[in-house]
Amino acid sequence: MSNPSILILPGDGIGQEVMAEVKKIISWYGDKRGLAFDVSEDLVGGAAYDVHGVPLADATMAKAQEVDAVLLGAVGGPKYDVLDFSVKPERGLLRLRKEMDLYANLRPAQCFDALADFSSLKKDVVAGLDIMIVRELTSGVYFGTPRGIFEENGERVGINTQRYTEAEVERVARSAFELAMRRNKKVCSMEKANVMESGILWREVVTRVGADYPEVELSHMYADNGAMQLVRWPKQFDVIVTDNLFGDILSDCAAMLTGSLGMLPSASLGAPMANGRPKAMYEPVHGSAPDIAGQGKANPIACILSFAMALRYSFDQGEEATRLEKAVEKVLADGVRTADLMGPEGGTPVSTAQMGDKIIEAL
Amino acid sequence: MSNPSILILPGDGIGQEVMAEVKKIISWYGDKRGLAFDVSEDLVGGAAYDVHGVPLADATMAKAQEVDAVLLGAVGGPKYDVLDFSVKPERGLLRLRKEMDLYANLRPAQCFDALADFSSLKKDVVAGLDIMIVRELTSGVYFGTPRGIFEENGERVGINTQRYTEAEVERVARSAFELAMRRNKKVCSMEKANVMESGILWREVVTRVGADYPEVELSHMYADNGAMQLVRWPKQFDVIVTDNLFGDILSDCAAMLTGSLGMLPSASLGAPMANGRPKAMYEPVHGSAPDIAGQGKANPIACILSFAMALRYSFDQGEEATRLEKAVEKVLADGVRTADLMGPEGGTPVSTAQMGDKIIEAL
Ligand SMILES: CC(C)[C@H](C(=O)O)[C@@H](O)C(=O)O
Ligand SMILES: CC(C)[C@H](C(=O)O)[C@@H](O)C(=O)O
Repeated sequence: MSNPSILILPGDGIGQEVMAEVKKIISWYGDKRGLAFDVSEDLVGGAAYDVHGVPLADATMAKAQEVDAVLLGAVGGPKYDVLDFSVKPERGLLRLRKEMDLYANLRPAQCFDALADFSSLKKDVVAGLDIMIVRELTSGVYFGTPRGIFEENGERVGINTQRYTEAEVERVARSAFELAMRRNKKVCSMEKANVMESGILWREVVTRVGADYPEVELSHMYADNGAMQLVRWPKQFDVIVTDNLFGDILSDCAAMLTGSLGMLPSASLGAPMANGRPKAMYEPVHGSAPDIAGQGKANPIACILSFAMALRYSFDQGEEATRLEKAVEKVLADGVRTADLMGPEGGTPVSTAQMGDKIIEAL
Repeated sequence: MSNPSILILPGDGIGQEVMAEVKKIISWYGDKRGLAFDVSEDLVGGAAYDVHGVPLADATMAKAQEVDAVLLGAVGGPKYDVLDFSVKPERGLLRLRKEMDLYANLRPAQCFDALADFSSLKKDVVAGLDIMIVRELTSGVYFGTPRGIFEENGERVGINTQRYTEAEVERVARSAFELAMRRNKKVCSMEKANVMESGILWREVVTRVGADYPEVELSHMYADNGAMQLVRWPKQFDVIVTDNLFGDILSDCAAMLTGSLGMLPSASLGAPMANGRPKAMYEPVHGSAPDIAGQGKANPIACILSFAMALRYSFDQGEEATRLEKAVEKVLADGVRTADLMGPEGGTPVSTAQMGDKIIEAL
């Protein structure tokens, strides 16, 4: 049997640097734990645009469809701001999500004990926080048509369409309930059913799916109230399930609660492939951070923890995932810090590569 | 010349109770400051549904169009959850906004010194916070068509349409810049121009309007990053301008930063009427709080401060508005607290009516 395959797409900005550390970790797993992967690498985002004139070449898309897991760094940068909408770096990312049909975006918002002081929130509000946001990723206003800027009665109109079918809601809801069964058995679904008909359908379908999970406590919240409750007392949540656009905003809000964006991974999962593994892409929640790119300052942990999610969700290596997560915790508890994790007390930050090395030591 | 006119729509839940205190304050202004108003009262939301079978009667709508300002309490309650979408309490509110064409929703997020400890955020992050969110209120996904739940290929599809014309963006942008000129001369516009064409048009029009205000520093942020930045360091903002749906979520997020939702007012302004006053409706940001309704526990301050906004924006009585705001601050500084403002130290909360009386004393 051949090794499981991974396609690495470092992308732009700090994507290269943080991915270099993930590559070291992948090698470590091959050398030390007998977990060898077939790793290939390609371009996405601005890096792909520079070479191919598009943010994702068709050949890269085809490769992504074939591998067992894609690891993505980050896309975008000021250099590409002037590009037309259709070839902006983000379109590469959105094409991967859509064509791989990665409908369930898992975004854990976890607060590491060693870093609880970093949050802008009070320590007791966030210490021990561990919630999972499941964001629908292939539909909604991100992909609905009609869309565009049209001329109407002599003036321009910007139009986008929010659109959800029952089946689209059902499958992501099922992902959320399955996750809740392995966690604290609570799902909170967020929409604006008081204002949007698509939210009414969303609520109805989630409720119906919930009936298959009698052990899971299901609640519903309007998305505006959801944002408030995340800020007020985030620990009330276990799993949150929401649509593509609300998920974009609410998961970023939740991410910031933890105070350390450089720490947060994500997994985007689709339907099972012939080999039983889900289509999958893993990426850090942070962006390409062009302001610090190329300086060895970036924090590789979010990207490394994304690989831990790959071990868990794509390669059925839950124990190895936990090993890696524990290694990260250990390094943090030892006080090892990249620049983004330096408190007002100061101290000397480690470089991106040093952080990677320390994590490997801890492994 | 006749007195300026006010239509009071207490609505549901705690709406009645908090509005009772506003009525006392209005009387005080008539008796003590020679500012007499012609006050009438009517039904909205569930209260209107109970009597008329609709959440806003046509006659009430007509009255709202004629008065100088509408004061609204809150709408909604569990009793009405089973109602059809078209007659839910919220539809009454949305009809008022739409037919009065109240396109600029001003939502200050202010942190009162005496209450900074109430926030889930660290004190230094929120103490002295004073930002103004200007939310577009009459368009976008709230009102765009097509909308509804449709049958397609044997399954149902929920559809809503985000839709902005240049003129709609332009007028709300102008409101934001005008406000910024009287504040700290900074506007941050939020959208998802990286994903939505309506956001591209939004950004372009805001930029164009900004050219008329060279003194105002304009920046743009994606709405997801906006949510993060609000949590991370909200004091970086002065005026934020955004669309109806993003505004709904981001303003609630901002409101919760202050830690005291019972404190926050809002103003919804439209075009000038024949008498030069803008069409206007004022309402607290909080909801109808059915769990504490009728118990004299509600905090009337948000509703009272909404009347202060009416003094400022409808009646050109900025000094009297400040007088009222200062009275509220004084009462808080004196330690007077409704139940929602009680800290863990405990103490005896005052009732809704006692809070109103104390504020009048302070006036
Ligand atoms: C880069 C952008 C297109 C993307 C999104 O809006 O989904 C990002 O914000 C995210 O959350 O992954
Ligand atoms: C009650 C509801 C329709 C309303 C909205 O979504 O606009 C509320 O959340 C608000 O922000 O005023």
